[in-house]
Amino acid sequence: MKKQVKVVVIGGGSSYTPELIEGFILHYQELPVSDIWLVDIEAGKQKLDIVGQLALRMVEKSGLPIRVHMTLDRRLALKDADFVSTQMRVGMLQARVWDETIPLKYGVIGQETTGPGGMMKAFRTIPVLLDICKDMEELCPDAWMLNFTNPAGMVTEAIYTHSSVKAIGICNSPISVYKWLSKLYDVEPSRIYAEFAGLNHLHWVTDIQVDGSSKLEELLQSNDSYSAQNVPQYNWNAAFMRSLGAIPSYYLKYFYLNKEMLEDQLASSTKEGTRAEIVKRLEDELFELYQDPNLNHKPAQLEQRGGAYYSEAAVKLMKSIYNDTRDVQTLNVRNGSNLDFLPENACIEVNSLVTKQGPIPLQVTTVPDAIKGLMASVKTYEQLAIEAAVRGDRGLALQALAHHPLVPSINVAEKMLHELLEQNKELLPQFYPKV
Amino acid sequence: MKKQVKVVVIGGGSSYTPELIEGFILHYQELPVSDIWLVDIEAGKQKLDIVGQLALRMVEKSGLPIRVHMTLDRRLALKDADFVSTQMRVGMLQARVWDETIPLKYGVIGQETTGPGGMMKAFRTIPVLLDICKDMEELCPDAWMLNFTNPAGMVTEAIYTHSSVKAIGICNSPISVYKWLSKLYDVEPSRIYAEFAGLNHLHWVTDIQVDGSSKLEELLQSNDSYSAQNVPQYNWNAAFMRSLGAIPSYYLKYFYLNKEMLEDQLASSTKEGTRAEIVKRLEDELFELYQDPNLNHKPAQLEQRGGAYYSEAAVKLMKSIYNDTRDVQTLNVRNGSNLDFLPENACIEVNSLVTKQGPIPLQVTTVPDAIKGLMASVKTYEQLAIEAAVRGDRGLALQALAHHPLVPSINVAEKMLHELLEQNKELLPQFYPKV
Amino acid sequence: MKKQVKVVVIGGGSSYTPELIEGFILHYQELPVSDIWLVDIEAGKQKLDIVGQLALRMVEKSGLPIRVHMTLDRRLALKDADFVSTQMRVGMLQARVWDETIPLKYGVIGQETTGPGGMMKAFRTIPVLLDICKDMEELCPDAWMLNFTNPAGMVTEAIYTHSSVKAIGICNSPISVYKWLSKLYDVEPSRIYAEFAGLNHLHWVTDIQVDGSSKLEELLQSNDSYSAQNVPQYNWNAAFMRSLGAIPSYYLKYFYLNKEMLEDQLASSTKEGTRAEIVKRLEDELFELYQDPNLNHKPAQLEQRGGAYYSEAAVKLMKSIYNDTRDVQTLNVRNGSNLDFLPENACIEVNSLVTKQGPIPLQVTTVPDAIKGLMASVKTYEQLAIEAAVRGDRGLALQALAHHPLVPSINVAEKMLHELLEQNKELLPQFYPKV
Amino acid sequence: MKKQVKVVVIGGGSSYTPELIEGFILHYQELPVSDIWLVDIEAGKQKLDIVGQLALRMVEKSGLPIRVHMTLDRRLALKDADFVSTQMRVGMLQARVWDETIPLKYGVIGQETTGPGGMMKAFRTIPVLLDICKDMEELCPDAWMLNFTNPAGMVTEAIYTHSSVKAIGICNSPISVYKWLSKLYDVEPSRIYAEFAGLNHLHWVTDIQVDGSSKLEELLQSNDSYSAQNVPQYNWNAAFMRSLGAIPSYYLKYFYLNKEMLEDQLASSTKEGTRAEIVKRLEDELFELYQDPNLNHKPAQLEQRGGAYYSEAAVKLMKSIYNDTRDVQTLNVRNGSNLDFLPENACIEVNSLVTKQGPIPLQVTTVPDAIKGLMASVKTYEQLAIEAAVRGDRGLALQALAHHPLVPSINVAEKMLHELLEQNKELLPQFYPKV
Repeated sequence: MKKQVKVVVIGGGSSYTPELIEGFILHYQELPVSDIWLVDIEAGKQKLDIVGQLALRMVEKSGLPIRVHMTLDRRLALKDADFVSTQMRVGMLQARVWDETIPLKYGVIGQETTGPGGMMKAFRTIPVLLDICKDMEELCPDAWMLNFTNPAGMVTEAIYTHSSVKAIGICNSPISVYKWLSKLYDVEPSRIYAEFAGLNHLHWVTDIQVDGSSKLEELLQSNDSYSAQNVPQYNWNAAFMRSLGAIPSYYLKYFYLNKEMLEDQLASSTKEGTRAEIVKRLEDELFELYQDPNLNHKPAQLEQRGGAYYSEAAVKLMKSIYNDTRDVQTLNVRNGSNLDFLPENACIEVNSLVTKQGPIPLQVTTVPDAIKGLMASVKTYEQLAIEAAVRGDRGLALQALAHHPLVPSINVAEKMLHELLEQNKELLPQFYPKV
Repeated sequence: MKKQVKVVVIGGGSSYTPELIEGFILHYQELPVSDIWLVDIEAGKQKLDIVGQLALRMVEKSGLPIRVHMTLDRRLALKDADFVSTQMRVGMLQARVWDETIPLKYGVIGQETTGPGGMMKAFRTIPVLLDICKDMEELCPDAWMLNFTNPAGMVTEAIYTHSSVKAIGICNSPISVYKWLSKLYDVEPSRIYAEFAGLNHLHWVTDIQVDGSSKLEELLQSNDSYSAQNVPQYNWNAAFMRSLGAIPSYYLKYFYLNKEMLEDQLASSTKEGTRAEIVKRLEDELFELYQDPNLNHKPAQLEQRGGAYYSEAAVKLMKSIYNDTRDVQTLNVRNGSNLDFLPENACIEVNSLVTKQGPIPLQVTTVPDAIKGLMASVKTYEQLAIEAAVRGDRGLALQALAHHPLVPSINVAEKMLHELLEQNKELLPQFYPKV
Repeated sequence: MKKQVKVVVIGGGSSYTPELIEGFILHYQELPVSDIWLVDIEAGKQKLDIVGQLALRMVEKSGLPIRVHMTLDRRLALKDADFVSTQMRVGMLQARVWDETIPLKYGVIGQETTGPGGMMKAFRTIPVLLDICKDMEELCPDAWMLNFTNPAGMVTEAIYTHSSVKAIGICNSPISVYKWLSKLYDVEPSRIYAEFAGLNHLHWVTDIQVDGSSKLEELLQSNDSYSAQNVPQYNWNAAFMRSLGAIPSYYLKYFYLNKEMLEDQLASSTKEGTRAEIVKRLEDELFELYQDPNLNHKPAQLEQRGGAYYSEAAVKLMKSIYNDTRDVQTLNVRNGSNLDFLPENACIEVNSLVTKQGPIPLQVTTVPDAIKGLMASVKTYEQLAIEAAVRGDRGLALQALAHHPLVPSINVAEKMLHELLEQNKELLPQFYPKV
Repeated sequence: MKKQVKVVVIGGGSSYTPELIEGFILHYQELPVSDIWLVDIEAGKQKLDIVGQLALRMVEKSGLPIRVHMTLDRRLALKDADFVSTQMRVGMLQARVWDETIPLKYGVIGQETTGPGGMMKAFRTIPVLLDICKDMEELCPDAWMLNFTNPAGMVTEAIYTHSSVKAIGICNSPISVYKWLSKLYDVEPSRIYAEFAGLNHLHWVTDIQVDGSSKLEELLQSNDSYSAQNVPQYNWNAAFMRSLGAIPSYYLKYFYLNKEMLEDQLASSTKEGTRAEIVKRLEDELFELYQDPNLNHKPAQLEQRGGAYYSEAAVKLMKSIYNDTRDVQTLNVRNGSNLDFLPENACIEVNSLVTKQGPIPLQVTTVPDAIKGLMASVKTYEQLAIEAAVRGDRGLALQALAHHPLVPSINVAEKMLHELLEQNKELLPQFYPKV
């Protein structure tokens, strides 16, 4: 008989949780989750209660022998866990507003995972995650951490560099590519094979096969590519796509269409507010719904929240590990010698065979020469920023920002960094140590 | 409806062919082979007829719509093929006798794939295979070549270095490891995962999992490892195995137990004759059986021939390519950046995901430091020998032999090379060009 | 007795030539140049005459047995040459005006070696240089080509990639660093050692020693760095310099101070004209001077022309090769495994020991992590642009530009590329083949 | 005015010391040594006195202001040292006898730096050297350690891996190559340039230039190569040399002529005794001479001792560092990315520019493919043996020996290792910890 599974959800009070609960219920046969521990911090207690009650109602409706626990005691939850999923937001949506607005003042993209905003999110998040990892090393050393917390690649790299926890970075973006292709070609996702090369939120799809036949060339000619709902809709330049020989992630629009995206952000920030503000309104509405004592399923409105397929990605990965399925998933893992122009320790987003012992990366078969420099450039920024986050080193933070492709000048970098750090002061004890 | 499959078997008159035919019959549902072309050369005509008639009787008995063709016209056979399987032996078993006996005179292991014997086999074989590849480039450029011809790693590397044919090297040794483990743990092979690192006939198994749990440590402690029937049975040294942290291929006994294997070869060569001579007797008996007009199945005696699971390996690979199965098989493929201490162009034997577009190698996760030098050393020999084979360059041949770990002196290398080349003269036009 | 030296100067009618002649005269004892061949094209005949006559007067004054030849027949000049120096400008200063002005229309730095301007210069120059190399392969296969033609790194890489000519890229920028330090510390340049890491016009000085003691830290603290006269004077940001741990080339201001440099270019282009226009006026004045039949020395005004120490760098390199001096010079050479995050074929600018057999690069000892990404990014652009230049491939040209760190959008890249190609049409036969 | 130099000689009682003293006297102008500290251990006190008195007489005769100190107090000597030279022999010549004789019993070369003997020397030496390094880190952190102690490459790698001391491995073998060539071509060594690639006692000379012209091809054709007096004289095989394209170190005869060298050792061991025994007799005679109170110069007999040019190599290196000479010397340094088929941490023997900040390795320009495997193979052994030496790990020691190219079987390795460890028991506290 197979072992029952204990799952811990850090940031359990998140609006995403009902989707995750739905996933565990739907896949109970392949992944017999006996205990779900929703963990949050004092400030999130109210949300945790609301979401936890909804989770209890959903499980009750399912009739499955799943126990749902709500707690502020992280260590209690982690003890002997099998999977730890992280979906937290240090500083909550207020900090995201800063990430999205302050850079704009300096003529730089404001975004929560890319550029200066992403760096601040990393600064706020990495120390907290490393603290959780210390607990895991002690209380559940064999558990897998599935890290969804953005910037997921940087956070994951920080964990495997500074901790012994087995961490896998995971993102809903690759799965969304499969969904798009599945719809486009009207075939099951299992009949599709897409090769991913790059970093988290900076990948290129370098081949697409349907039933083993490559469709890349025809897709590049037709210039039909996926773009998530939460990223403004610019079509890619057709001549560019044809000569590139790969399909860029929609996050690459911040780089390839920097001018246009920046103008758009500047325009929309005055009109409709930042993405953070929109999401905040959506979240408030969701929590309103969650409180309905008659609600016992994931409400349809959650899908507008962004992060579609998040639950699907998480449950799929846990299932494959649990069952030693050896199917291919696109994950954030240590580079090793795979992309030989990047450091061995770099976290990269590539196809991996998922075994019970974790993901085994497949060798990337195709990397267009054109994309290597940008990948290296962003990875340099990431590695500097990770070390700055861990050490609280302003010099490294300045170097990270000054070498980010989206920052137009070291003088801009210095001034912007000063304002960003000051604004985030309360959330960055490593940069502002108590004397 | 799926495309019917055309398979060409180069060296179709081989005694192995009935096993292959059996495989096509057994797996017809997943791999609808419509045409099997058995190709051989003039000197092999008689054998081709005998084997071909048996193949026809086997197919007839099966009732399946498979056509079997026998021909000496290679180009006719290759036209529009889907898979080309090679199982030929240039110089036939007589040349193998030389490979196995001449080195012994110089105090060096005599073996048809390892050491000087393997080098001569490569010299005889590579030019012929490259000729076949030229035909394939013209007549069936999209076909997959499954190369079983030994030394399979070197031959495959020669092909992808000097031809555009899509070649995969394949060996029955990895599949035999799975068979052994399946029996040992009494589980289906599909529940086992073994990581292979190394070269063809020079691999180490660096992890073994059953249902996702590693069994390597307990196996190393128990010192129970697989050894093929056709390799003398020395038990591995227990202290050595425990500190190595990997299970060596039984071919590694030629290196790790060189002294003992050499003594054994010298002793047995006077008594029972070489392996080539034993095989020759077995083959004669097999062809006697094959001629029986009532025989319409693979005779049991074939299993004593060695090369067990050869058919299984071949059909399994074709099936996975045909159906885009994306399962993991251990194959001989181009290194790229996988083992970063070997040349990028090196052919290595590693786990690969088999897709319709061919194998995608998995990144090797574990390579004990202790084995890197020997791997590099043999690869140096291989690359020198491949180039010597292609160019007919005696200087390179001498360097290859002089740097082979089993050759005790450059003076020995020089004398032995002279005798080997002279003995193989008729089969080595590249070394003995007509004026 | 030592061999007399034959030097060919391609672009002999350049205003720089008198400096070179002066160098040969000054160093005649160590480098006995017997023949100087000044070669130019039909369109440059008049300038060649003027410069050639001045050269003759300078040599006559020196009393040395040097013969000066002026010719439009390149092949005649190249026959049995020892050194070939290139200092040409395809399209002359008019094309430079385009390089410097067209990008500005698109909000991109206009510069003759960096960014879109540099790319166009590479497009115009590389095919012409490769033609010269074809002649050299035939007429003087043992000659050394000293390539000063900008973009010197890209042009040199094109040569050693597509020709067997022994080419060394050379730039006056490293020698200028030594001049600056020599003045700053009041010591002979020979007592200084500076380590360079990077690409041509994209290097960082990663250590500076005076009499073997490192002065880097104190220099970074004092923020005193060299800046050539022809680059606007922005002081580096002090906090940035301290945390960087290296001194950037002044060309790096186009990247690190992109915003400021761009604003400056836009402002000055309306006022004082481009650098090309200023240089044009300077050149006109110089040629006016050169025509004076009483002038028999290099006029002082030449020093305002930019390219200071150009002659010194060239003669120093020839002397060291000729005399097998084995001193260290900073040169543009093939990377090999030196900077392991760049392609092996990349041309890099690093310290090299100069022997009679050419430069042997020293292993770079220090590369701050912060600079790797930018270096990789610009090298990606360079390699795409070189291939575009050789093949006349618009797709590659678009990729090169779209991935250049200074270009803000692929749409901008596409439009700008179109205008640049059209403007340079007459000079780019590879992009506009005659039907 | 320049700083006076303090030199510490660990193993000061060695018979080599007079040569070193002679060197300091001869080169006093360029290297103003004010203090020479001869350090030895209790067991070497008598020898230290004899050698020290001779040193004092030599210095007195020179009239130079050099102070010679003899001490058993290592820490006193090391305080504020500028250079520390190591030339010690843990276990003295008795242990060398074991190194040279025990392997022979197992049919393996017995030699003090190569094979099992070298490994035992490393086991005895490395922990002692690392202890000295601990003192240096504290007492003279800026000093340079010049390590002559064999196996010099392994010992040096152990130091820079496990200590922060600035260590350079040095060997008299490269300088001997220059002496040979200087005589052969009748030119000053300074007019010769030889490229070395490989490891200590395992190098190949891949180019030889006289006045900048390559002489390699003619040397390979003539098959005239250097062989030290203390290595039996086998001529290299001519066909082998021609196709190799490099000149192997004479130590490579243990590998390339293993059979012959082994037969020779077996024969001579019964007749004339081991090299250790011969050296022991020579040493006894030398110390007899050294005691002569009238002797005030290095006696001619020392040259028969082997290790010719040892003093020259040491003083040359100190002079170049002290004076920031930037000349090229062949030294044992960290690989980095130089030989990209070896680990970055590997100690390799290559040409290096010697600056005041230490050696900067030149990129090796030529490595014949044929030699890469053997180099990798021996480096694998070395790295395993170094770790075994540091940790006292028998498993690693067995792996090191089992993977050494000269050991014919893992069973032989196991038995031989057992005997070697037992014999050296008293000198290997790390393998035989006190309970």
